Amino acid sequence: MAIPGFRGSGTACGIKKAGKADLALVVSDLPCVSDVVFTRNRVAAAPVAWGKGLRSRAALRGVIANSGNANACTGKEGLSAVRRTSDAACAALGLPAGSLLVSSTGVIGVPLPAEKIEAALPGLVASLSARGIARAGDAILTTDAYPKRGVRRVGVRGGTVTLGGIAKGAGMIAPNMGTMLAYAFTDAPVRPADLRRAFREAVDPSFNRIVVDGDTSTNDTAALFANGACGLPPLEGRDLAAFSEALQSLLLDLALLIVRDGEGASRVVRIAVTGAASGAEAETAARAVATSPLVKTAVFGADPNWGRVVAAVGRSGVRVDPDRIELSFAGETVLRRGLRIDRAAERRAAPKIRKETYAIDVDLGLGKGSHYLYFSDLTHDYIRINAGYRT
Amino acid sequence: MAIPGFRGSGTACGIKKAGKADLALVVSDLPCVSDVVFTRNRVAAAPVAWGKGLRSRAALRGVIANSGNANACTGKEGLSAVRRTSDAACAALGLPAGSLLVSSTGVIGVPLPAEKIEAALPGLVASLSARGIARAGDAILTTDAYPKRGVRRVGVRGGTVTLGGIAKGAGMIAPNMGTMLAYAFTDAPVRPADLRRAFREAVDPSFNRIVVDGDTSTNDTAALFANGACGLPPLEGRDLAAFSEALQSLLLDLALLIVRDGEGASRVVRIAVTGAASGAEAETAARAVATSPLVKTAVFGADPNWGRVVAAVGRSGVRVDPDRIELSFAGETVLRRGLRIDRAAERRAAPKIRKETYAIDVDLGLGKGSHYLYFSDLTHDYIRINAGYRT
Repeated sequence: MAIPGFRGSGTACGIKKAGKADLALVVSDLPCVSDVVFTRNRVAAAPVAWGKGLRSRAALRGVIANSGNANACTGKEGLSAVRRTSDAACAALGLPAGSLLVSSTGVIGVPLPAEKIEAALPGLVASLSARGIARAGDAILTTDAYPKRGVRRVGVRGGTVTLGGIAKGAGMIAPNMGTMLAYAFTDAPVRPADLRRAFREAVDPSFNRIVVDGDTSTNDTAALFANGACGLPPLEGRDLAAFSEALQSLLLDLALLIVRDGEGASRVVRIAVTGAASGAEAETAARAVATSPLVKTAVFGADPNWGRVVAAVGRSGVRVDPDRIELSFAGETVLRRGLRIDRAAERRAAPKIRKETYAIDVDLGLGKGSHYLYFSDLTHDYIRINAGYRT
Repeated sequence: MAIPGFRGSGTACGIKKAGKADLALVVSDLPCVSDVVFTRNRVAAAPVAWGKGLRSRAALRGVIANSGNANACTGKEGLSAVRRTSDAACAALGLPAGSLLVSSTGVIGVPLPAEKIEAALPGLVASLSARGIARAGDAILTTDAYPKRGVRRVGVRGGTVTLGGIAKGAGMIAPNMGTMLAYAFTDAPVRPADLRRAFREAVDPSFNRIVVDGDTSTNDTAALFANGACGLPPLEGRDLAAFSEALQSLLLDLALLIVRDGEGASRVVRIAVTGAASGAEAETAARAVATSPLVKTAVFGADPNWGRVVAAVGRSGVRVDPDRIELSFAGETVLRRGLRIDRAAERRAAPKIRKETYAIDVDLGLGKGSHYLYFSDLTHDYIRINAGYRT
């Protein structure tokens, strides 16, 4: 995955054991337009607190990220480690201080060994290459089962622009586990306001709609960098729309790769709530379903257990008229006007919900509010992975 | 467990398979003062909707409850079945219509066979006895591993009053699973306003503070009946306070029996949040911890994983200053002013959190808000129990 004007690299600097890749760098050869969104968790990791406080995010040229240590709950020392890492990396690249976003992911509460990162910087910078972005993608992984990356090419007036992205994790927060990180890069020429709007519009229906365990990370970060290396004039009108669409498609792919890799997950379900009194109520109801352990275990067990879905909606606090609810599993309506249709409908649904992905649709029949989310199931492997002692 | 003036019985009426007890009746020989609290789930089961609408709950003399069928999501037919059951039971007892609370627990969405209950009524009434309250307690169980009951005796001026209670379930909502039901009975003479206050004050720190899976039931019901059979004048002052205290102790015992029997649970943890900006924020933070799958699996794995606790508090939305947080596992402080103390503290905590019950204390260091909850862990058995097909 080569994005014109971007180079990347990844290496093992010794934060993880056994020489595993744990330090990633992606940088643009040209100035960028960029945007960053961070976790809303009020216990933000040091790199997140530092990134939010950056005086000029307009000057960002790329990102340096480590895995294996989240640099969270590390106090003033943690902030110093971020500043030290950033300054050293910018200096090694010959860039002004503050040109790089810094991210961390991994164990919470352990001091970040900035000296190991500093020692690895010369090699990391020396090995930067157009093809090295994929290696950077490997170096941000923790318990991920596979790397997450994607590319889109979009024809625009006068040429082609390329978008590429790397991501890791699945919304978890602690030792030996991932936290969500995602970086997208493009050679498209995009004005700052257009880039910001396109990025926010692409993050909302992708990273903001995936649920593994309902826990949000202290380190979640997503960023988009556009360097205009394609040499075309700023995208407008139909070209800008095509770019936005490709960005949405790319981020949704990355998001679905994350939820599919959710710890122990065997299935990804799209829960859509329609007919709610408002959009906010639809989202509240969808989140109650997507985080319910009883719904998630029923999905694992391939049980068309609509009673658990209805009960989760009912306890979510949104307005509900039980006599109007309609519900389907994988397109098979099993509940109409609040009443079970018959056993045959559930039997028809049964084989369809053994698939890896399917949809649960709930129509509350009250208004025009709607929302959807993608969520993973809750399996024996989730318990095995998360009950283990930290090592 | 005999409560003067109350008689109970339990039988198998054929709702459950294999002749298992599934119909319970407890009734007072004398008029009662009573109070009832119901689930706040907006998808309320038919008996809950009917009970909330009862014109005169002041006339209640007891309860008839079935297990094996929740009579939830059953529409108008479900409401008819409740009325039919209630009318038939009151007639069989020679009581005016509306003298009995009706409860159901079990599978959602299947019509309740009221005719089976009617057919069993003559036998159920004939076998009523003072000792039969325990049998009634057995007949409301579903997947419970053991029956839940308790008794308290309180010395008051002029004699002794007795309180007894039966309960079932653990906050779950669906097929082959329990829903929380609890009934307490006393021969104490208590004025209606005093009884209501004492009951609400006892429900709040007991049934309202237990978490298994965060899902609340369509059928949850708790009720207290006082028939004054002890023959003393209405309790006042110190006697009323002693009664209230005994009631709180009894309901807390029943609540802890429920959470300890939470599906697959191996441990019960008391999470206390202090130093929050308000009591409501402390409760929000405590609920985020108690329902976090990452915290619950760490409890199962006996891992003093304070990072997961802090991250759950951080995402709950309450005000937090990461540099002020103090946290202990089983009395061992592992985090002070937002920083990990050392590995030794976690090693000291390790053996203490292998016990069946212990405390996690989080001090946010911001204000005077505090709250606590009891929650169970998330284990392999939870997945096994809840992923299974309905049978």
